[in-house]
Amino acid sequence: MKAEKNKLPSLSTCLSPSLLHLYDVSSSIVVIIDILRATSTIATALYNGAKSIIPVDSVAECIKLGKQMDVITAGERDGKIADGLKYGNTPLQYQPEFIKGKTLVLTTTNGTRLLHMALAEGAQGIITGSFCNLSAVCDYLAVQKKNVILACAAWKDRVNIEDTLFAGAVISRIKNNFHQNCDASQIAETLYHQASNDLFAFMRDKNASHYLRLMGYGLAEDIKFCLTTDNANILVVYESGRLLLR
Amino acid sequence: MKAEKNKLPSLSTCLSPSLLHLYDVSSSIVVIIDILRATSTIATALYNGAKSIIPVDSVAECIKLGKQMDVITAGERDGKIADGLKYGNTPLQYQPEFIKGKTLVLTTTNGTRLLHMALAEGAQGIITGSFCNLSAVCDYLAVQKKNVILACAAWKDRVNIEDTLFAGAVISRIKNNFHQNCDASQIAETLYHQASNDLFAFMRDKNASHYLRLMGYGLAEDIKFCLTTDNANILVVYESGRLLLR
Repeated sequence: MKAEKNKLPSLSTCLSPSLLHLYDVSSSIVVIIDILRATSTIATALYNGAKSIIPVDSVAECIKLGKQMDVITAGERDGKIADGLKYGNTPLQYQPEFIKGKTLVLTTTNGTRLLHMALAEGAQGIITGSFCNLSAVCDYLAVQKKNVILACAAWKDRVNIEDTLFAGAVISRIKNNFHQNCDASQIAETLYHQASNDLFAFMRDKNASHYLRLMGYGLAEDIKFCLTTDNANILVVYESGRLLLR
Repeated sequence: MKAEKNKLPSLSTCLSPSLLHLYDVSSSIVVIIDILRATSTIATALYNGAKSIIPVDSVAECIKLGKQMDVITAGERDGKIADGLKYGNTPLQYQPEFIKGKTLVLTTTNGTRLLHMALAEGAQGIITGSFCNLSAVCDYLAVQKKNVILACAAWKDRVNIEDTLFAGAVISRIKNNFHQNCDASQIAETLYHQASNDLFAFMRDKNASHYLRLMGYGLAEDIKFCLTTDNANILVVYESGRLLLR
């Protein structure tokens, strides 16, 4: 039984980009998690027909690509549309009539940076995860027979509730396919079981910092959308500089 | 009401030494938390009459001080007595007949390093916390009217369950004396409420990594002792290079 367990790939949770160096990224598939709102927006835009999404680290790079290519440029800093960009990071904006067939260049505070960190560390594969595509993420990971790191984008490296909850949701669904030796995963799963009945209410009752920030901008509908399971249930993979539906 | 809340000092939780740079250490009292087992051993040794404890970063420094002074040198690396040192990091060893009136020089894998990080960052005050002295820690923090950072030593920078649980225990007791805007604190408190009925059983059921490690060394009694509330209920402060009972 033990030997069999040891044959299983490992499943770990990294609660902040500042902790990524502790994990064996180069032997793992890394799931980028930025629930509010980058990875929710990414899933939604691709689900609604975007051709691809180019994640970039800086606003300047975003603007530059916008001038060179026929793309939509979007991004936020500190939860608001970044200066010089026209579109933000609200998934509700990326409806089919707006995004279908288009390429989106996106920069966000936390998620795109983490993606490039995982890339620099030589991740075997990179996908993005959000409640919007939870089932697709889980179905994919469960059968890869590869180590998985659930990598939370956090908020400026501070651990946050919503990314941790998503890690917990994934763990609760697919843990039997993996070997686990990660306290952070146990913490995430315990948190998720406390919250799963009503994620929005949990975020509200716990005064989640990003909940308060986005509510302050009047974005309750964004939060609710980002906490809804499988409303854009497609698999998003990172390949050759682009996020694509697969 | 809001204005009144803003006057309260802040209470935050730092889940790993790798995240300490995100916190405003220089305006805060830092509580060093290394439940298994440094801060439990520290509380116990002082409770049982140790004159003071000198925490040092390296085994070499520990041995050097042992040659220069009439002290007991102790320390562990990876959960075992370090080469060149005679005593380890088990609180049960530091009974009155052994430790009374003595000075202990202690080096541990995680806790002493974090203490020196907090010191280097200019913490306003440093105390150590463990379930063994939970009430003394809470009673002290509640009346200081200063910002507090609950700083988990973790395991080689990886977030662990037991230090997070202790942070949650402190938060659940004294949160009304503070302003909170810290998701990690909410996560810690939620975890603690799930575990508080039987901390040992929680650690076992969650396969906590340090639980498994110490059980592998046959140290179940150590774990139980370190998860017992107020069995060495004194306040431990760091002053001029030494940990002292106050």
